[in-house]
Amino acid sequence: MRYGIDGDRLWARLMAIAQIGATPEGGSCRQALSDPDEAGRALFLDWCGARGYQLRKDRIGNLFLRRAGREAEASPVLIGSHLDTQPTGGRFDGVLGVLAGLEVLETLDDNAVETDRPIELCVWTNEEGCRFQPAMMGSGVACGVLEMETVLAARDHAGTTLAEEIARHGYDQEPGPSLAEAACYIELHIEQGPILEAAGKTIGVVTGGQGIRWYEISIIGEETHAGPVPMALRKDPVPVLMHVIGLVQAIGRTDEAARCTIGRIDLSPGAINVVPGQVAMTVDLRHPDEAVLDAMHRRLVEGLDVLRQRHPDIDLQGRMTWHSPVVTFDRGLIETVRASVRDRGLTFTDIVSGAGHDAFNLARRVPTTMIFVPCRDGISHNPREYAAPSDVAAGANVLLDLTLARSNM
Amino acid sequence: MRYGIDGDRLWARLMAIAQIGATPEGGSCRQALSDPDEAGRALFLDWCGARGYQLRKDRIGNLFLRRAGREAEASPVLIGSHLDTQPTGGRFDGVLGVLAGLEVLETLDDNAVETDRPIELCVWTNEEGCRFQPAMMGSGVACGVLEMETVLAARDHAGTTLAEEIARHGYDQEPGPSLAEAACYIELHIEQGPILEAAGKTIGVVTGGQGIRWYEISIIGEETHAGPVPMALRKDPVPVLMHVIGLVQAIGRTDEAARCTIGRIDLSPGAINVVPGQVAMTVDLRHPDEAVLDAMHRRLVEGLDVLRQRHPDIDLQGRMTWHSPVVTFDRGLIETVRASVRDRGLTFTDIVSGAGHDAFNLARRVPTTMIFVPCRDGISHNPREYAAPSDVAAGANVLLDLTLARSNM
Repeated sequence: MRYGIDGDRLWARLMAIAQIGATPEGGSCRQALSDPDEAGRALFLDWCGARGYQLRKDRIGNLFLRRAGREAEASPVLIGSHLDTQPTGGRFDGVLGVLAGLEVLETLDDNAVETDRPIELCVWTNEEGCRFQPAMMGSGVACGVLEMETVLAARDHAGTTLAEEIARHGYDQEPGPSLAEAACYIELHIEQGPILEAAGKTIGVVTGGQGIRWYEISIIGEETHAGPVPMALRKDPVPVLMHVIGLVQAIGRTDEAARCTIGRIDLSPGAINVVPGQVAMTVDLRHPDEAVLDAMHRRLVEGLDVLRQRHPDIDLQGRMTWHSPVVTFDRGLIETVRASVRDRGLTFTDIVSGAGHDAFNLARRVPTTMIFVPCRDGISHNPREYAAPSDVAAGANVLLDLTLARSNM
Repeated sequence: MRYGIDGDRLWARLMAIAQIGATPEGGSCRQALSDPDEAGRALFLDWCGARGYQLRKDRIGNLFLRRAGREAEASPVLIGSHLDTQPTGGRFDGVLGVLAGLEVLETLDDNAVETDRPIELCVWTNEEGCRFQPAMMGSGVACGVLEMETVLAARDHAGTTLAEEIARHGYDQEPGPSLAEAACYIELHIEQGPILEAAGKTIGVVTGGQGIRWYEISIIGEETHAGPVPMALRKDPVPVLMHVIGLVQAIGRTDEAARCTIGRIDLSPGAINVVPGQVAMTVDLRHPDEAVLDAMHRRLVEGLDVLRQRHPDIDLQGRMTWHSPVVTFDRGLIETVRASVRDRGLTFTDIVSGAGHDAFNLARRVPTTMIFVPCRDGISHNPREYAAPSDVAAGANVLLDLTLARSNM
């Protein structure tokens, strides 16, 4: 028997919670552990409370809503996402995964469906990382990727520590975060990119997350006056910058899955009539295949070596500052997503997540996968962020299928 | 009969005045109209007062020290430069031209030489333009290039107006700046570039100043997340930036006299994991031949047009924000410099000034030229700025020859 979620109820709740921290442009601002974030959680807990799900909190502010199963001791199926937003957040990033999870629980209730395993709906604290760094904090601490003591010292721009905000909301009285044994974790999310829309597909079957490597490159020449010094006598780092951009662009053509970004370029001193003495720039390389990402890394390192030899007057240095390995989601869960999508006659395509998600932390501990739905123009972290009601409902139904399948396994 | 300046006296004074506003690294900081600038002028006026030269000031703070001639009504020969420095100034930029001018007057005194024309030693206010913009201010107002009322409203970083500083030092009681009829203007200066040193020459016979054109270029794409969006679907302005750098580099190879500088590149928002939505950059083009500079300008405009057509997804805009025409110095004065240099057996080469100087303003009103001496490694606006005592003396002797020749013409 196939159940179906209530798309209207889900949509109405997405719009209702968006009123908390609503911005003039139609988005929401509920940064982690702020008053609007707490108000959003309170509304969500009101909805949950009406159904009698058992609430558990932890010391980082993660929330777990438990719908009991026939086997009380069985490890639960985890579903969920986050309710915090960027300062210029939209109405779907994170919120969709949480409210679709609630919709799944209620649909099971409404249809009087019992499951073998308990189901726990998770709300992870501070996924966005815009107010307190690092991002994916609540899931990171719960999964042992981050240290509780370290993150408590994080400060926002106003100087407030995370520990102060945790205490202000009373989470400091809760037990320390830890992830109990779980059957699996499943997260529904908007794509935050343009691939599904461009391909005209409703569901993204997420096979994993890109590996990410960050680099800082410095190109040091000699600062001189733009007038007196002939081109041939300059030690101008800008022509080398040009070649580094070309190198990074070439690496970006490795294959269709490669992503290469130069997000920051700083010239020093940065005056119109001064040949800059120094260029500082960043490079972000991503690929879903660690071996290919390794090759991209080598190509960058070797390319910089070649440039260094060609420009002996310029001091060219690059170093990797961060490395997040490729995430591979659970093959069994991915197959179950494909089965659901086929069964419901939805269009779909495999996809690799370019953005980071709480599911990346969970994947280190339990079988995990994600389900993506399209977002208009690929725009996210922006008030214009939008997902069509039919896509939202389709994604929630796939989440329902997956949850039901796994909670009876 | 050939006279010679006192190189030791000149050097001792250069070192003495450098103690006013001395910086730990061995340079001087006497920004225009600051207390150190006034203290430097006071020391200079002490030296002049001992000789009885007639002092005149004007409302922008320019100083004129007059050594009388046999013909009291004859238009004077003007020599000089400026005493203000950059915040990271050296001991020679500007100061050399003023103190060498004083050395010329004193040498004539010491040898009891009378001249037909009076000689006026000029100290121009705020040549550097680092505290109050624009640069070359005192000479600009005196020559009618700048408006007195406009520059009085200029503010420094602390919010102080030029008018307030002018009043604080009592210059507001002086007559308005104006350049009376003059026979000519001659300025000795360090090169502020590496050409003389590289060529192994003592004297630069300055034939004029480069024309300068400034541009602001904006390259607008679409800001996106560095992860989810495939390279082919991005509107990344950085590859276009690469082509603009290449275009400017190519224009820089027009001929040996061309100068092309990209001094500022700003990426917005400038985060490591965000494809920038916008690049803002500057271009500085210079050439001593206005026709060639025109051609360089056209090549930039046409090159941007080609790039615009090749990248229809990117909004590429460029506009010229400032234009300073080519300056051509007086042929007769240049010949007199060459005669002096040959007569003294000094090595020399013709040179075009890449930096701006008060002489550029004077050249609009009276026959003008400049004399350059080498500075070590071409470094200026820096505590490491250095000119050898023998070169300093050689330059001052050429200034003496030129002044003497013109004050008896």
